[in-house]
Amino acid sequence: MPAQDQQESPLPGDGAVRRTVAAVVFPGFELLDLFGPLEMFGLLSEDVQIRIVSELAEPVASAQGPQVVRDSSLSDVSACDVLLVPGGPGAGQQAHNTALLASLQRLSARAEMTASVCTGALLLAKAGLLAGRRATTNKQAFHWVAEQSEGVEWVRQARWVEDGAFFTSSGVSAGMDMSLAVIAKLFGLQRARDVAMEAEYEWREVSDWDPFAKANGLV
Amino acid sequence: MPAQDQQESPLPGDGAVRRTVAAVVFPGFELLDLFGPLEMFGLLSEDVQIRIVSELAEPVASAQGPQVVRDSSLSDVSACDVLLVPGGPGAGQQAHNTALLASLQRLSARAEMTASVCTGALLLAKAGLLAGRRATTNKQAFHWVAEQSEGVEWVRQARWVEDGAFFTSSGVSAGMDMSLAVIAKLFGLQRARDVAMEAEYEWREVSDWDPFAKANGLV
Repeated sequence: MPAQDQQESPLPGDGAVRRTVAAVVFPGFELLDLFGPLEMFGLLSEDVQIRIVSELAEPVASAQGPQVVRDSSLSDVSACDVLLVPGGPGAGQQAHNTALLASLQRLSARAEMTASVCTGALLLAKAGLLAGRRATTNKQAFHWVAEQSEGVEWVRQARWVEDGAFFTSSGVSAGMDMSLAVIAKLFGLQRARDVAMEAEYEWREVSDWDPFAKANGLV
Repeated sequence: MPAQDQQESPLPGDGAVRRTVAAVVFPGFELLDLFGPLEMFGLLSEDVQIRIVSELAEPVASAQGPQVVRDSSLSDVSACDVLLVPGGPGAGQQAHNTALLASLQRLSARAEMTASVCTGALLLAKAGLLAGRRATTNKQAFHWVAEQSEGVEWVRQARWVEDGAFFTSSGVSAGMDMSLAVIAKLFGLQRARDVAMEAEYEWREVSDWDPFAKANGLV
C-alpha cells in the first residue's frame, strides 16, 4: 500500500496514488547502483515517482564523476514508499554519518520496502535495520562489509536477498535484478517482466543466481 | 590512439594520456542508456575520464526524472576520444536539432570511436554518420528509427554492431554490452572482462546474442 501520509509528504507529488521511490545519494555513490534501479522503476512512471534525496544542496558527484541533482533534502522528506540506498566507494564514509543513518532509520520505519544495492547494505546495517535479518552485498567487498556489521546473517551466494520488507542486492549490476523483484512484489510478476523487456534486460528472476560469489572465492 | 589535440581540448584534463569519453545528454535521455556505459567506462578511471556534455547550461532531466549536470558545453568541446550518444524518448526531438547534429558530426570526425545506445542511433543516422554502414537500435523502436533514416543497413538481430569506428547498440541495457566491447577494443578483452566482473555484470561477449529481436517480431 502507498504510504498513508502520501498527501502530507513534502515530496512533490501529483495527487495520484503513485508510489514514491526515494533514492538517497551521497558523494562517491556508484553510478549503476543508483541508475540501474531507477531505470526499472522509471519505466513505471504511471505508478511510481522517483525522488533523488540528499543531505547536500549542491549536485552530488558519483564515484565515476557524473553529478546528479537532488529533488529534495533528505531531512525534509517525511515518508516514501520505497527507500533505495545505493553503494559505492563513498559508502564507507557515510557509514559513520550518524545524521544520514538516522534518516535511513526514520524513512525505513514508514516505508513499504527498503532496498539497498551493493555496499549500500553497509549503511542499512550501520543504521541497525538489518539486525537479525538475512542480507547480501557486493561480492568483492563482502568481507569488508561483513566485518563492519554485527547481528546480520550475510548471505554469500545470492543475486539479492528478500527478508520481510528488506531487499538487499549483490554488487552494482545486481541492483537491477533486485529492483525487478521489488517491482514484481509491488505490481506483479508480469509487470516486472514487461519492464525487463522494455529495457531489453535479461532478468533471471531467481535470487540465488550468483556466479560472482564463486568468482570471488565466497563459496 | 588518444586524440592528438588532447592538450588543446577545453575539456578539463589531468595532462596524462587518459582517453576522454564525451557523453552527449539532452532532455528526455534514457537513464540507463547513459549511465550503464558510464559505469563501465568509469571503472577504468586510470585510463578514461568521463565528461557529460550538453547544449544546455542547466541540469538536464532524464526521461525518468533524475537530472544530470554537464561538465562542458557541447559547443566548447573540440575533441574527444570516444563520443557516446544515448537514446530515450527525447531523441525524437533532437533528431531535428541541426546544431546538435552538427556537433555530433564535428566530434565524430575527430574521435577514435563513436558509439550510440538505443535510439541514440537515430541521431547518428540523422547526422549522416551511419550512411553506408551497418547499425542497430532499440528493438521496440526499430521500425520508427529505420523509417526516419536512409542509407543505413539496419541489423535486426544484434546486441551491438561494430562497423569501422562506429558501435551502435540495441535498447537500453545493451549499451553496457556494447561499452564492454568498446573497452575490449581499446584496452583488450581481459580488461573488459575485469570491468564486467567488478560490476558483477554478466557480459555475453558476443554481439549477435539478442533475444529481444525475436520477442519484438523482428526475426
